[in-house]
Amino acid sequence: MNKHTPATALAVPTVTTGPIAGSRKAYTTPDAAPDLKVPVREIVLTDAAGEPPVPVYDASGPYTDPTATIDPEKGLARHRTAWVKERGGIEAYQGREIKPVDNGNVSGAHLARAFPNQHAPLRALEGKPVTQYEWAKAGVITKEMIYVAERENLGRQKMLERAEAALADGESFGAALPAFVTPEFVRSEIARGRAIIPANINHAELEPMIIGRNFLTKINANIGNSAVTSSVEEEIDKMVWAIRWGADTVMDLSTGRNIHNTREWIIRNAPVPIGTVPIYQALEKVDGDPVKLDWEVYKDTLIEQCEQGVDYFTIHAGVRLAYVPLTASRVTGIVSRGGSIMAKWCLAHHRESFLYERFEEICELMRKYDVSFSLGDGLRPGSIADANDRAQFAELETLGELTRIAWDKGCQVMIEGPGHVPMHKIKINMDKQLKECGEAPFYTLGPLTTDIAPGYDHITSGIGAAMIGWFGCAMLCYVTPKEHLGLPDRDDVKTGVITYKIAAHAADLAKGHPAAQVRDDALSRARFEFRWQDQFNLGLDPDTACAYHDETLPKDAHKVAHFCSMCGPKFCSMKITQDVRDYAAGLGDNEKAALGLAAEAGMKEMSDKFNAMGQQVYVDADQVAAGKPAPRTTALDTEAAHAARNAALVKQSNKAL
Amino acid sequence: MNKHTPATALAVPTVTTGPIAGSRKAYTTPDAAPDLKVPVREIVLTDAAGEPPVPVYDASGPYTDPTATIDPEKGLARHRTAWVKERGGIEAYQGREIKPVDNGNVSGAHLARAFPNQHAPLRALEGKPVTQYEWAKAGVITKEMIYVAERENLGRQKMLERAEAALADGESFGAALPAFVTPEFVRSEIARGRAIIPANINHAELEPMIIGRNFLTKINANIGNSAVTSSVEEEIDKMVWAIRWGADTVMDLSTGRNIHNTREWIIRNAPVPIGTVPIYQALEKVDGDPVKLDWEVYKDTLIEQCEQGVDYFTIHAGVRLAYVPLTASRVTGIVSRGGSIMAKWCLAHHRESFLYERFEEICELMRKYDVSFSLGDGLRPGSIADANDRAQFAELETLGELTRIAWDKGCQVMIEGPGHVPMHKIKINMDKQLKECGEAPFYTLGPLTTDIAPGYDHITSGIGAAMIGWFGCAMLCYVTPKEHLGLPDRDDVKTGVITYKIAAHAADLAKGHPAAQVRDDALSRARFEFRWQDQFNLGLDPDTACAYHDETLPKDAHKVAHFCSMCGPKFCSMKITQDVRDYAAGLGDNEKAALGLAAEAGMKEMSDKFNAMGQQVYVDADQVAAGKPAPRTTALDTEAAHAARNAALVKQSNKAL
Repeated sequence: MNKHTPATALAVPTVTTGPIAGSRKAYTTPDAAPDLKVPVREIVLTDAAGEPPVPVYDASGPYTDPTATIDPEKGLARHRTAWVKERGGIEAYQGREIKPVDNGNVSGAHLARAFPNQHAPLRALEGKPVTQYEWAKAGVITKEMIYVAERENLGRQKMLERAEAALADGESFGAALPAFVTPEFVRSEIARGRAIIPANINHAELEPMIIGRNFLTKINANIGNSAVTSSVEEEIDKMVWAIRWGADTVMDLSTGRNIHNTREWIIRNAPVPIGTVPIYQALEKVDGDPVKLDWEVYKDTLIEQCEQGVDYFTIHAGVRLAYVPLTASRVTGIVSRGGSIMAKWCLAHHRESFLYERFEEICELMRKYDVSFSLGDGLRPGSIADANDRAQFAELETLGELTRIAWDKGCQVMIEGPGHVPMHKIKINMDKQLKECGEAPFYTLGPLTTDIAPGYDHITSGIGAAMIGWFGCAMLCYVTPKEHLGLPDRDDVKTGVITYKIAAHAADLAKGHPAAQVRDDALSRARFEFRWQDQFNLGLDPDTACAYHDETLPKDAHKVAHFCSMCGPKFCSMKITQDVRDYAAGLGDNEKAALGLAAEAGMKEMSDKFNAMGQQVYVDADQVAAGKPAPRTTALDTEAAHAARNAALVKQSNKAL
Repeated sequence: MNKHTPATALAVPTVTTGPIAGSRKAYTTPDAAPDLKVPVREIVLTDAAGEPPVPVYDASGPYTDPTATIDPEKGLARHRTAWVKERGGIEAYQGREIKPVDNGNVSGAHLARAFPNQHAPLRALEGKPVTQYEWAKAGVITKEMIYVAERENLGRQKMLERAEAALADGESFGAALPAFVTPEFVRSEIARGRAIIPANINHAELEPMIIGRNFLTKINANIGNSAVTSSVEEEIDKMVWAIRWGADTVMDLSTGRNIHNTREWIIRNAPVPIGTVPIYQALEKVDGDPVKLDWEVYKDTLIEQCEQGVDYFTIHAGVRLAYVPLTASRVTGIVSRGGSIMAKWCLAHHRESFLYERFEEICELMRKYDVSFSLGDGLRPGSIADANDRAQFAELETLGELTRIAWDKGCQVMIEGPGHVPMHKIKINMDKQLKECGEAPFYTLGPLTTDIAPGYDHITSGIGAAMIGWFGCAMLCYVTPKEHLGLPDRDDVKTGVITYKIAAHAADLAKGHPAAQVRDDALSRARFEFRWQDQFNLGLDPDTACAYHDETLPKDAHKVAHFCSMCGPKFCSMKITQDVRDYAAGLGDNEKAALGLAAEAGMKEMSDKFNAMGQQVYVDADQVAAGKPAPRTTALDTEAAHAARNAALVKQSNKAL
């Protein structure tokens, strides 16, 4: 990759393209809007499976579509402009002029090249509805709503046909997951403020997605330009890399030089919502001194970013002067950068936060472009010791007050949350947020459930993320292994995304999402039937799973391994299961009834399938065993035993060749 | 390491020795037994901390003691023989003769060398108490009980002196964690069957440890010889490596050739309890054919392993004939190897399990050596789809029945659990186990909370492990990244152990363990004060934390980084916190009262400490800034911002030199 390209004039960006191993890109068309193409990734199984492809949610955009032409210099297709225009009530206008300070006053070789194509920004006409919230309140179902309904439905209809819905038990803690998502359901959730579609009318390249606890749990990945250790090309590549593995939104936390141009390149090439923290750029405009910040420079920055198409802003308007002293006795003070900036400003001027005082003006500005609020938790705890303290909850209560103001002004809102919280204090956070903020979507960082594992904070936080997702958190902001230690590189971004996809999916399973278990079951069948390739491809990271397997199992032995004779003909768990099923099938009805066994039919069917499969197993087993008797290798009393024994057998027989 | 040594005659084993970075080995002496030396690891902080060393639990044995002489050829010191003999009621005798079949009938170059020093085994005299359970019931406090009380107390007394006990809130779900562990408390917990000290009287090298939900949550690491891909030397090294990073017990799951000799080398060099699954070796003795198993060969194997000093046996006596058909309609059938073996045997002979029928004889045999039961979950679910099904719970109910029989026979017992369980079904497992098994310690594998991440199952299971540990699980069996895919190597073992130490510690925090948070707080203070070295050393893996940090921050810049000027003098979270504390200290009493702030004294103290520290910060900051102005680098709105900005600054100033 371009890791070592200096942050100077932009070279031609390169990004990772092509389908994920074993998957193909597909599109579906909603009945309600035949002109929409909604992406879905289909994991195609081997013939041995005798199963249809497994559809999975696809955040990766055109980059995984082999038929798409990708040119970062041009950016992605701007299909959403038409949707916005046909709703009316907007105007194109001459946007704010880009100033040198927007890029840190750099010039010459240090100035990153501007994105080639400029577009005149759109904004709402006075008094006309423009936000998804306003349309929803007005009872109008937008194309964005139809799009996300189709996108969220993934696999549910198929599952309902298979009557597997009954499988989806779960404890939802008050969430109301419908069996099937309709555009009207999407509209009603947005109108209630319980979900948002972050979709700036100037982000025409967006593939709309929804954030709310009655939908699939989402994850966010943070990237950002660093004047020293990364480049614009790298950030574009990181964004594409993050969504390839499943990031649903991406926050550009760039600071320093070239902020404006970096963000332009990212947005024009982003099919996912892009979030920012505008105070970061505002701070750069006043030479990094929080004391010099004021409403004018902040407002100027909001307009700049609204016109570019940023979909949501983190705004720390809940850090009020009176709350700042509440952090005085903390172990780790204020760890949110935005929170520190505002605390410093409040103390230096001994004034109430201008973000809090100007909040209505901020709403009126953001409404015109449908930029969603991500109300920042500037006073979140930075350690287990500070979790759930008065400072944190005082701010949360104010975020609730601001949520209602933003709704009155027609804006979409979500709420940011901690941070560092031990397991027994996580649910308290979720419950209080739902209560204080009228069920507006919650968006948390982790939380980390212990502070003692620097280098492994994707794991300390993945535990907390899975739990709070289960309890109702709508979006989980990833943490990478480099947290607290350094800047995440490409590998860290992938590890963070995969870890958070695990947390989000575990949450969906536990909530009882009606389709979530379809993928687990398909993978479990593949695992049990030794369809190795299917097992890899159904996983979140086929490349890594296959690489680990190949460490002990050479590729050329794959066919043999496919039907595994790991334990030799005398001891094979599949054969034993076949015996079990034959035995069960042969039991008398009374015995079956006593055991509460499945009906004769189902049992017979399974027994037959396994008898058929069994023959294949033993043919292969004997072929392999012919060379040498199967050596007995380490068998951990877990499924790893299979791979292990398998590997040993194949190595042995290869030697024999 | 010896990765590629063939499994032939044993070379001189090499193991990893020396202290963990930043730590020193120490020993304490319990008042109740001045002849005991109980190990503790002390993390020594830098002078800047002005804090005493942080004591942490130390499972690593003499290998991390620089003053200890380590010679795997001789094995560890056999200090426990004296403790056992002074209690009386035992005899030394001519043990069972070692037969070729014990090592898979291999000879010559394929036979692993026998451990040089043989010891005559000990066993209980008829009718004399010998197990920790029997002594506890008789009201006798053994040296093992005194030892583990001292060992568990780690940091609690210190904390109580600091009156931090109040900090330890938490939800214990009925666990009763004492503020301070006394030998009598240990005795009473063992007498109630609520805790065990796995300690075969023939494992004289053991440093006793306790497993129970009112003690620190423990973790187990699986290792095991593989005839093809590893060697005896590697397994010894893996055992030492696993306990170095915190494995509290180790299971030797060796199969194939050289089982007896491999196990002997491991036990003679193991300061932690060693567990096995005897049916694995019994199966080898009948040429891998489950159908040929019988009581005689199994009993012979039990005696062989009892005499060697194995501390606990996994015995799948709950897999009853009648339960086998209950697995017929499962997605993944029977995934426990031991469970499959017994299911196959029961069906082939159409007879009740001989392990179930002979259970009392098994108890009588194990009692004589104080080998603890780890009642195996042979019917545990192998997928989310099969979690909490009738087969699993029917077996668990039988394990409850067997627990009471084992107690009546004077044996110590713990219960094995799943496996694969979605989050919302985890607590049901814990609650049912406590109810059915009379609060005997629970010992689970994970559980994995989703099936869709092969290659990352240390994470899918770490989530479930943290939760079930919180709910009351006493020991967590690790899962490595290679689960389902291949044999774990040395790196996988470390990753698995660290992940499970995170889960166990997160559980202790959430349960409200009175001393657990001491380490989190010390690390958080180090983090907040930019004492990088202390942050690394207080973590579970100082090497990895330091390596990640060094990727962006060169060592030679460490001193400057130590007091961090990452954001330049104008923006420093430490400076801002100082401002906050000065401000708070200056508030009137009424204002303070209104905000519920800490007392003047405490505030003043903190304010002073930070003022002092602040001067140092700005001296260094100015020195660095003198070279060049601090460049502004990517600042994720998380603590990573600090490391990032820091790294950039130092790189820049290095360039300037």
